[in-house]
Amino acid sequence: MPELDHVGIAVPSLDEALALWTPLAESSPSAPEFVPSNRVRVAFLTVGGAHIELLEPSEPASPVARFLASRGPGVHHLAFHVPSVRRALEEVRERGGRTVDDGPRPGARGRTVGFAHPSAYGGVLVEFVEGP
Amino acid sequence: MPELDHVGIAVPSLDEALALWTPLAESSPSAPEFVPSNRVRVAFLTVGGAHIELLEPSEPASPVARFLASRGPGVHHLAFHVPSVRRALEEVRERGGRTVDDGPRPGARGRTVGFAHPSAYGGVLVEFVEGP
Repeated sequence: MPELDHVGIAVPSLDEALALWTPLAESSPSAPEFVPSNRVRVAFLTVGGAHIELLEPSEPASPVARFLASRGPGVHHLAFHVPSVRRALEEVRERGGRTVDDGPRPGARGRTVGFAHPSAYGGVLVEFVEGP
Repeated sequence: MPELDHVGIAVPSLDEALALWTPLAESSPSAPEFVPSNRVRVAFLTVGGAHIELLEPSEPASPVARFLASRGPGVHHLAFHVPSVRRALEEVRERGGRTVDDGPRPGARGRTVGFAHPSAYGGVLVEFVEGP
């Protein structure tokens, strides 16, 4: 079974979110990173044994900007480790679910990722992250 | 530091959500439980090493029903273990944050819980669960 990799949280300002979350974290946050494929600027930190990814949209029309406009700041996705992103996306489609991504693509931290559609998990956006 | 206890997911129908999540889970879901203090019916299951709590509102005017009406199904809260819910809520208020609960109250699974306000964590509703 896949393991939880991180919880993604959409925020309007990465700097303000880091100021809020860093005192609660067990270690220093990662250096902010721009992820072109998702049009976000992100940083990771560990809170309560859980990896938290803070996501700030880099463009007004990007998916995270639309999420913030419609739902406000909050949990944006759950990411699980899988041995193969390609296979995980195929399995979603085989059981009749939709996927955002047709196949694997580059994500944050140099990892290979892919997103299912929220409708495939009852409204929860699920990301697959390849590797152990 | 607190540990992540579970991820709470708001769903319109617990039965439909269990049908969706159970095939992805590592073990059988817990028996559905009514939590009067939150006006929800809930069940827990383990997916990817993460405990997932599925929450169905038991009344139209309850907080989870309002969440579903305004944001739709999705991640509703993150719950962290703390040694003392009373102390955790006080710490939020001491740093100028708001809390939903003034003090500890009974939650699901016979545990003592308390909620911070989403504004205290940049839009994320955080629950404290007492005990190891």
